[in-house]
Amino acid sequence: MKGWILSLFIVVWAVGIAEGEDLSISEDTETCIECHGMYHPGIVEDWRRSRHAKVTPKKALKRDGLERRISVEEIPENLANVVVGCAECHALNPETHKDTFDHEDFPVHVVVTPKDCSVCHAEEDAQYSRNIMSHARGNLVENPVYMSLVKAVIGPQDIEGLSAKLGEPDDKTSAEACLSCHGTAIEVKGLRTEETEEGEMMFPVLVGWPNQGSGRLNPDGSLGACTACHTRHQFSIEMARKPHTCSQCHKGPDVPAYAVYQVSKHGNIHASLSKEWDFDAVPWRPGKDFTAPTCAVCHVSLLVDEEGEVIARRTHQMNDRNSWRLFGVPYAHPHPINPDTSIIRNRAGLPLAAELTGEPAAKYLIDAQEQEKRLQTMKAVCHACHGSSWVKGHFERLENTIETTNAMTLSATKLMLVGWDKGMAKGLSQEENPFDEALEKKWVEQWLFYANATRMASAMAGTDYGVFANGRWYLSRNIQDMIDWLHFKSDVKK
Amino acid sequence: MKGWILSLFIVVWAVGIAEGEDLSISEDTETCIECHGMYHPGIVEDWRRSRHAKVTPKKALKRDGLERRISVEEIPENLANVVVGCAECHALNPETHKDTFDHEDFPVHVVVTPKDCSVCHAEEDAQYSRNIMSHARGNLVENPVYMSLVKAVIGPQDIEGLSAKLGEPDDKTSAEACLSCHGTAIEVKGLRTEETEEGEMMFPVLVGWPNQGSGRLNPDGSLGACTACHTRHQFSIEMARKPHTCSQCHKGPDVPAYAVYQVSKHGNIHASLSKEWDFDAVPWRPGKDFTAPTCAVCHVSLLVDEEGEVIARRTHQMNDRNSWRLFGVPYAHPHPINPDTSIIRNRAGLPLAAELTGEPAAKYLIDAQEQEKRLQTMKAVCHACHGSSWVKGHFERLENTIETTNAMTLSATKLMLVGWDKGMAKGLSQEENPFDEALEKKWVEQWLFYANATRMASAMAGTDYGVFANGRWYLSRNIQDMIDWLHFKSDVKK
Amino acid sequence: MKGWILSLFIVVWAVGIAEGEDLSISEDTETCIECHGMYHPGIVEDWRRSRHAKVTPKKALKRDGLERRISVEEIPENLANVVVGCAECHALNPETHKDTFDHEDFPVHVVVTPKDCSVCHAEEDAQYSRNIMSHARGNLVENPVYMSLVKAVIGPQDIEGLSAKLGEPDDKTSAEACLSCHGTAIEVKGLRTEETEEGEMMFPVLVGWPNQGSGRLNPDGSLGACTACHTRHQFSIEMARKPHTCSQCHKGPDVPAYAVYQVSKHGNIHASLSKEWDFDAVPWRPGKDFTAPTCAVCHVSLLVDEEGEVIARRTHQMNDRNSWRLFGVPYAHPHPINPDTSIIRNRAGLPLAAELTGEPAAKYLIDAQEQEKRLQTMKAVCHACHGSSWVKGHFERLENTIETTNAMTLSATKLMLVGWDKGMAKGLSQEENPFDEALEKKWVEQWLFYANATRMASAMAGTDYGVFANGRWYLSRNIQDMIDWLHFKSDVKK
Repeated sequence: MKGWILSLFIVVWAVGIAEGEDLSISEDTETCIECHGMYHPGIVEDWRRSRHAKVTPKKALKRDGLERRISVEEIPENLANVVVGCAECHALNPETHKDTFDHEDFPVHVVVTPKDCSVCHAEEDAQYSRNIMSHARGNLVENPVYMSLVKAVIGPQDIEGLSAKLGEPDDKTSAEACLSCHGTAIEVKGLRTEETEEGEMMFPVLVGWPNQGSGRLNPDGSLGACTACHTRHQFSIEMARKPHTCSQCHKGPDVPAYAVYQVSKHGNIHASLSKEWDFDAVPWRPGKDFTAPTCAVCHVSLLVDEEGEVIARRTHQMNDRNSWRLFGVPYAHPHPINPDTSIIRNRAGLPLAAELTGEPAAKYLIDAQEQEKRLQTMKAVCHACHGSSWVKGHFERLENTIETTNAMTLSATKLMLVGWDKGMAKGLSQEENPFDEALEKKWVEQWLFYANATRMASAMAGTDYGVFANGRWYLSRNIQDMIDWLHFKSDVKK
Repeated sequence: MKGWILSLFIVVWAVGIAEGEDLSISEDTETCIECHGMYHPGIVEDWRRSRHAKVTPKKALKRDGLERRISVEEIPENLANVVVGCAECHALNPETHKDTFDHEDFPVHVVVTPKDCSVCHAEEDAQYSRNIMSHARGNLVENPVYMSLVKAVIGPQDIEGLSAKLGEPDDKTSAEACLSCHGTAIEVKGLRTEETEEGEMMFPVLVGWPNQGSGRLNPDGSLGACTACHTRHQFSIEMARKPHTCSQCHKGPDVPAYAVYQVSKHGNIHASLSKEWDFDAVPWRPGKDFTAPTCAVCHVSLLVDEEGEVIARRTHQMNDRNSWRLFGVPYAHPHPINPDTSIIRNRAGLPLAAELTGEPAAKYLIDAQEQEKRLQTMKAVCHACHGSSWVKGHFERLENTIETTNAMTLSATKLMLVGWDKGMAKGLSQEENPFDEALEKKWVEQWLFYANATRMASAMAGTDYGVFANGRWYLSRNIQDMIDWLHFKSDVKK
Repeated sequence: MKGWILSLFIVVWAVGIAEGEDLSISEDTETCIECHGMYHPGIVEDWRRSRHAKVTPKKALKRDGLERRISVEEIPENLANVVVGCAECHALNPETHKDTFDHEDFPVHVVVTPKDCSVCHAEEDAQYSRNIMSHARGNLVENPVYMSLVKAVIGPQDIEGLSAKLGEPDDKTSAEACLSCHGTAIEVKGLRTEETEEGEMMFPVLVGWPNQGSGRLNPDGSLGACTACHTRHQFSIEMARKPHTCSQCHKGPDVPAYAVYQVSKHGNIHASLSKEWDFDAVPWRPGKDFTAPTCAVCHVSLLVDEEGEVIARRTHQMNDRNSWRLFGVPYAHPHPINPDTSIIRNRAGLPLAAELTGEPAAKYLIDAQEQEKRLQTMKAVCHACHGSSWVKGHFERLENTIETTNAMTLSATKLMLVGWDKGMAKGLSQEENPFDEALEKKWVEQWLFYANATRMASAMAGTDYGVFANGRWYLSRNIQDMIDWLHFKSDVKK
């Protein structure tokens, strides 16, 4: 291997010179690494590969216009001239962090938060706070209807005779099920003592930890986890731009964005040819740096054309390129105005953005004009590679699919209502859990799995997925299964 | 990054010299790029990476024997000495293209077709016309039985009381569901006006666009889309040879070739080691250029051994290496003789290649001798890496699996016939849609999903997929579910 | 391409010098290659890329301490000074191999076994013999309860009226279904004659071939196939360390380790960044050689820290890092002591490691102390990248999930027992197959698919998989479906 290592060394050295790497590590960080490099070599080495370990904020600030990766204009003196190491983040803002503890005389906190990151990345933090993802936890736990669903999915069921008693979910299950992606509330419950190789040490007891959910409630009161996508400790833009990152939360049958992408032409090009793309370039140039979009291209990244003209501005709000809310809801509807969706009430008083029969709760949703504006923002990205006939045809199909899948949800809902009305299942009509019985679960699958998946397959042109994998075949079969269930049930001797 | 860029520049320059790149771009194409490079930088840059952008047909013709990538002997003078750019394809054969329109004084068509490509790749075009894939659209839409299935899968279902009324599928849904892979019919419906940055412009209104289905009916009357596999605008052989390309249409539970490949040893080797393979070499050498087959190796590519002796000839007919039709059909049967399968009639008069009870409609299918010949062609590929005991054992198992899965389809069909005979479901006996009710859908899943998937898992040795993922477990469970359904149904009060 | 080829040549030459490649190929192997290089170029070239083709055992023995890849101290003289070629393995130990046959005057055997490999890799062979995987075949075929399941899954079902008669599985189906991963018994049934390009030749008739199942019963009496993971003929450590290898047997809904890994943060890092990792280094350094674990990191590989201190010793026993048996069983339980699990009997006399109601058959299972020891071994790996709060929180959740999923299996089992007691299904109470009817299959799915998958999602933090993909949603829905089935069935007219 020595031949290779030598070559690698030379290349790394050459790149180092070119980049003008600045290895001014703060004394505090040096102290951290002294022990942690030994006990946790993986993270320390991981960090050494990061841009944070190679460039000081001061230097990063000097980048011109669109090449800038820092969105503030000024960085506090004590942070500007050292690379962004352990201490710079984990000992930042100690006073606002309930999880701050004394660790070898440093006021360290375990959970680094968007508020910490905002010292350099303020604009991204502000955008992300308007992203529905930053509210993912609250949008679930503050919504009693969704919490009935959570209970029906992850609550224990004890059997007595021929019936099941649905119990309350326990916290550990919640943390590794729904809240794993939506985000836990991280609470500090005092300190615990641990025997370590360096002697006895105290650490905070963190409830809800570990977690990197997109809507995590942090010990400093902030929402979200930048590490959900910019994985610690490389925090690599390359990784955030790759579709695998999104797949962590968006692959299951309820939100199969990644599964759809995989069978799309875009996903195919990525899988086949991306080894030669530049995933690190800022700004990012369609054609030059990549030849097909990843999730980030359409939903997040700053894109410019050959001349450096902006095609799409960087956004961590994400939904400013999305006209519709396609998934996670019984009916697709215009995107909510406020990222906090727990405030929404439909006419029936339920915290849902549409009636059970599909009419949108319009006052909580963006209007047609804002929808059109977002559509144009998205189309600008499409046009980097597609002519207008192509793009027009594509979105006309999506609009049609939103309509037809909403209609199939309505059909299932009508059957569900028959079941409730006739008492064959006990749900909203009986003020009982509307998600815990077999018929109700079929109804949930109609919208949460099949309608959502079909729409995603349409939106991202991963059409194969929207037919037999998790789409129209089941949308259609499920109606028949619900009808049969109602027939069979009505015949069961009471 | 400058260090890297410099290195890359030197390498690219060295390769350029070695390849003797010929950048004679036609004036017409230069004109195209002037605007489109600005408005659609992605495709223009994508094309710049292509072989089409780097080599003139004249030069490509000079390659020796098996290294030739062009299959005609002569190229029209006006095309021979310029690289294959925008104008060379999009303004070719304007008179045969119903979608030709005047675009800045050029007679441009949007939809480039196999007939256009055949100017240089005539043999591939001819082979592909004998490929069942080029007839994928007609084989569906001209087959009334299959169209009943299409209706049952993608038609709307309106609820009245406790029954569902199945409606006709709309065109936009068809285009992004079944016809997305099978191919749409692209029709020209006049012209539309669009306000562009260059002022008002006219474009043809294309119904069925966008589409790259393998059996697309094109505005010049030709069938297919070379871009289904050779993605525009790199048209890269590398990409066509990678399994992700096939996965766009062959991953769902009905045709899970890619899913099977992924858990096969072949797929594992590809996933683990292919970064060092040469996906561009023509001819392609097992062991030297790659160490495990992708889809293309077994089904398409020109393979030679160490001495340059042909192991398998290139084929875009594909089925000349396949003895059996394994999927998309109720019973596996010898491969159809004619790629147009809509002409087939079984004894019952149905457009199916087997009776409902499994006996093949032999006169439309290749005979045992042709089956053996195709098997030998395929085995020659296997032998590049496997001894005769291995290969023999493998194909004996496949033959056995064809038998056992056909038997499990027959079992389900017998139950289906009971359902029809007793009127518990209304299908062929009642001259009604045989695919729209719950029992019928279970029957469809027996063959379209489980039997097909089990056979594919056998054929490609992705055995894990054929048991619990989408195979024998369900083949077996489904029979029991059908039996229960018949019991439950027969008990429902009329 | 010549520019590239020249560069590659120089690099390969440089590496060659550095490695001090030793191309002493034995005369016997030269003879093999003379023909086989022509007839099977793929395997011969594949082997040429292997370490086996480049280093003699004598030289490999000279590596220091942890860098050694050979675990014996001495190699027989005739093998030590030549690279490990065809003859070195396929003509080794001819007397112990029932499949030895005379091939061009060489006593060749087709099936190379762990016993053959143990000449150089004795320690790995010994460890693997304590690995439950080496007994995968026997643990299935010697366990009558599991064989009832096998029959119910892969046996044919013939229909008479409205019932199905379950037949015995045939051998070829067994070989490509369950035994494909578990391993076949390879038996020699005489010789067969084949017409080859070199004239008529005799080969052994091998029943159960091909197979690379992890518990294969070999013609020399040994168990296992090193090639299950170290794919022939590169036998690459890189490939064995990549997750795709494990996916061949661990991806289906019953053992979805790979599917879980894919949506885990670890899997995401691997998919996004592993192209720059060193998969060949021995020992393997977290952070330096890789920045996130693959399957091998946690379960097999020798890991050292920056200073060369051992983090985890190499093990081919694998379960010495696993406290629990999480999958393939109705209830998760402490790991079995003996890799041969067919000897286990629960109180009811069944060959299962737990009662039907979940209590573990403790005397066959490791005790709490051994569980703790294994947990500490595993945690040492985690700590390479994670602090103690993180690791503690993670494993507390796993323990909780083991409990809750076992409880959901118990709930399903109670319903199953009602079905058996009331004769609605015929199983253990009736001494009939407990897995062949619809209700029984739902019960099997509860533990074999949903509980197992949920636990795996917890163990490997691929949480998305454990909710809607194949986890709690179905654990919960299935209980309701079983209840309905019992209601519907009890109502069917007898």
